[in-house]
Amino acid sequence: MERSSLNTPASLDAPASVYGDDDPIAAFATTPGTSALTLLRCSGKNTIDLIAKVFSPGKVKNAAGNTVIHGWIIDREQSTENKKIDEVVLTVFRAPKSYTGEDSVDICCHGGSVTGKAVMDVLKKTGFRDALPGEFTFRAFVNGKIDLTRCESVMELVNAKTEKGRSHAVSRLSGSLQNEINELKQLLVQVLAGAEIYLDYSEDEISAEYDADAKDEIAGKLPNKDIAQNVLTRLKKLSDSWNIERIYQDGVTVVIAGKPNTGKSSLFNLLLKEDRSIVTETPGTTRDWIEAWVSIGGIPVRLVDTAGLRDTDDSVEKIGVERSRKLLDEADIVLYLIDGSHGNQESGFGSMEAENKNISDNEKINFRKSVIYLWNKCDIFRMPNPFPLVNISPISVSAKTGEGYNNLYDAIAQAINSQGATASQSATASRSAMASRSAMASLSGDFQSQNTSAAALGTVRQKNLVDTACAVLEEALELVESGEPLDLIAPLVREAVNALGEITGEVLSADIFEEMFSRFCVGK
Amino acid sequence: MERSSLNTPASLDAPASVYGDDDPIAAFATTPGTSALTLLRCSGKNTIDLIAKVFSPGKVKNAAGNTVIHGWIIDREQSTENKKIDEVVLTVFRAPKSYTGEDSVDICCHGGSVTGKAVMDVLKKTGFRDALPGEFTFRAFVNGKIDLTRCESVMELVNAKTEKGRSHAVSRLSGSLQNEINELKQLLVQVLAGAEIYLDYSEDEISAEYDADAKDEIAGKLPNKDIAQNVLTRLKKLSDSWNIERIYQDGVTVVIAGKPNTGKSSLFNLLLKEDRSIVTETPGTTRDWIEAWVSIGGIPVRLVDTAGLRDTDDSVEKIGVERSRKLLDEADIVLYLIDGSHGNQESGFGSMEAENKNISDNEKINFRKSVIYLWNKCDIFRMPNPFPLVNISPISVSAKTGEGYNNLYDAIAQAINSQGATASQSATASRSAMASRSAMASLSGDFQSQNTSAAALGTVRQKNLVDTACAVLEEALELVESGEPLDLIAPLVREAVNALGEITGEVLSADIFEEMFSRFCVGK
Repeated sequence: MERSSLNTPASLDAPASVYGDDDPIAAFATTPGTSALTLLRCSGKNTIDLIAKVFSPGKVKNAAGNTVIHGWIIDREQSTENKKIDEVVLTVFRAPKSYTGEDSVDICCHGGSVTGKAVMDVLKKTGFRDALPGEFTFRAFVNGKIDLTRCESVMELVNAKTEKGRSHAVSRLSGSLQNEINELKQLLVQVLAGAEIYLDYSEDEISAEYDADAKDEIAGKLPNKDIAQNVLTRLKKLSDSWNIERIYQDGVTVVIAGKPNTGKSSLFNLLLKEDRSIVTETPGTTRDWIEAWVSIGGIPVRLVDTAGLRDTDDSVEKIGVERSRKLLDEADIVLYLIDGSHGNQESGFGSMEAENKNISDNEKINFRKSVIYLWNKCDIFRMPNPFPLVNISPISVSAKTGEGYNNLYDAIAQAINSQGATASQSATASRSAMASRSAMASLSGDFQSQNTSAAALGTVRQKNLVDTACAVLEEALELVESGEPLDLIAPLVREAVNALGEITGEVLSADIFEEMFSRFCVGK
Repeated sequence: MERSSLNTPASLDAPASVYGDDDPIAAFATTPGTSALTLLRCSGKNTIDLIAKVFSPGKVKNAAGNTVIHGWIIDREQSTENKKIDEVVLTVFRAPKSYTGEDSVDICCHGGSVTGKAVMDVLKKTGFRDALPGEFTFRAFVNGKIDLTRCESVMELVNAKTEKGRSHAVSRLSGSLQNEINELKQLLVQVLAGAEIYLDYSEDEISAEYDADAKDEIAGKLPNKDIAQNVLTRLKKLSDSWNIERIYQDGVTVVIAGKPNTGKSSLFNLLLKEDRSIVTETPGTTRDWIEAWVSIGGIPVRLVDTAGLRDTDDSVEKIGVERSRKLLDEADIVLYLIDGSHGNQESGFGSMEAENKNISDNEKINFRKSVIYLWNKCDIFRMPNPFPLVNISPISVSAKTGEGYNNLYDAIAQAINSQGATASQSATASRSAMASRSAMASLSGDFQSQNTSAAALGTVRQKNLVDTACAVLEEALELVESGEPLDLIAPLVREAVNALGEITGEVLSADIFEEMFSRFCVGK
């Protein structure tokens, strides 16, 4: 593996003194809190000797790899009665059979906010330093345990918000993307090998003078051109997969808006199916926004409840209204509530058009959003049929009784699909294969049918590199078409190979460490 | 061990079908969240066979105890591409070498909010049920792995709020209390044994008729009376230890109060040394109270910031003010802020006396509290010297610049010591040894010198049982003094032995399961 040379810090382009060493490092692998246990991880040079210094005597040094030992973490600097820090279970891993590939020890101590910290303090005094974000996974990569696509899938897993998001990340963790990329890369290497026979010939066998005949002979004739074309098609499919994966990862933002006292917080709670925001009869209760993640059709939805939209002299309230407006700008979908109890008063028909007429400019709602109108409180006031405002077909719901919930859920799911379709459409507009299908149906279908075993991209980094590979390969094939000489074409193919190599980490770029591992959580 | 008979559910007084079985149970042992890893625990009958069904084939069944295995959690009910749930590390424990004493498996899966849940779902489908709170520890107790004082210390550890609290709990976890209780119990058994020689004699050797002479012979003559007296002294010392332990565990509540805009939130933040509440110029920003735990001299302090105390027509604000008042009632210590910027206006001297004159009855502050007056904003307005109000010596601080922070910290620490002293004094008022020392100095000294290796009580349950033992032993010794016959005295000593046996769990009472284990967190 080309990256094996990375074991010495000096060979790293990235800040070598930081991510490149094999210092003993330690970190919380679980969040300390009111839980039964807390897990700390240690790895690096001398880890087992250092742990032996802070553990019940005579137990650690001769422990075999992959075994657990029960005992006490000891702070030998303390007086006798304070020496014992916690009764723990150690797991000893010996290189190379560990996550990082180094000697490692997991410490499973009691939970709570204090004990883990006390154990960590002892580890630090003994010579461990705090691990940097993602440093364990970084070391796993450097030591050849996993490639970069699997490194990234680890972080995707931790951040997964829905079961589907998890399942897609697991597919990459088990190597689906790595395998696809390696296969495509091998195919391109085959293309290159064929081309370089000619290139070698033209450089080595022919004199340094320009030999127009020899060049002409191979101009526009890329050997294995069909393979290159096939790779390009598969790369484009990979690139497109990101449109859907991105939504599984980042989710969509759904903002609940409407005038004060229309039942926004109640609707929020209905969607959460639990009582988390204060619901009172006083307008303006939700001073700030609150938000929560829910899963709608497997898509993570960031659901946001905003402060009521109204003019106010209360400065705190004003901050809330300003924030609401900012949140509306960020929203992918707006749920706009009309208070059914005002349904018979003309001013109460809270369509955005109607409301925008009566409110100041800076409060007007952005119409680029996908807006779902809701007629709330339908348990008390039935929605008029037909609805008196043109262009609006509100869904009749009661946040209080849950009536209309299924219709609302379906409407949100459909709006999400449209969101994805828009992204997918703009990304794939140039592809004729898509033209005959409605973008909407296409994405809706994609969401349902996308097979988790099919390779798909998991990060923007991967997407950018695949797009780079696509672009240079497309350029190479255009040069072939226009009959350009092979020594202009081959370097482009090699560039595509390098881009694919960067995805798995066989080829390294200097910024990968900062860009990638620093976004990991500590302890991973 | 007397409790060995407990292994069959039928012998349990407690709800046997609930805590008494050996069903395979599973639970999260760490809090799922954005962390590197999540730990799940499984234990009980067939655990290893069940895990084998959901793990990479052929790896689990023959694994030795105390070893770890790397592989995948598999959901065999899913389609091929969705089978893989997560790549995990299993730790296999074989009975009796496990926390519970049963076959157990720890599953270390990836962190995040979704993965752990997905693994748990597979476990549940395979035959594990959710563990009840504290059920793992309960099984450890039933299987004779730990006594009840150590069970309780596990929960104390998880709940510990300061380093000192942790260190006291660890002392009990390592058996300091169990040893002391067992030693005292042995001494009382010795007393009983001596007494029962006479009792056996009087019952067996002498005829069933009442033999007044034989009774008189031993009346008022408890053999080993000195030992009983010594045990009583040590029990009382144990009982007193709870006054301090309780404060280490429960902490004290310090409530920040004062008129709106006196800088309460700024002071709160200063004490937290981090910015967590909103500080604005608008009175009434803190609509509700916010709170946080801080450590002052090793004592956990629940620091509460209240809404401003003022009359208001805003109903939400009103709820906040009512809550503030309730919090003031719960407070052990009140930090009462005077706004230095109003210092030269008579109405601004916010002493409670002065303020209480001007406010309605239901807003008057409870004077039983320990109140620390603070002259805030001293960076702008220096505190007048001498201070114009009698009986009040405010501490001059600036929540904004941090000036006066050390004086404030010391004043809070001193007030906490006084709190503890009051409790300690009322508890120990009858002990002459205490009389010569001021209660304040005594507690202050106790806090600093209490040796963590000395046995101390960790729970109210233990305290109540020690007090029961004290009471019956005291009564027994009084009967000895007044010359009562031994057959009235011995049962009291036996009652004390039973109370001590209940502390460690050698003697069981029916309500222990509900009272104790149900307060544990799940997964412990």
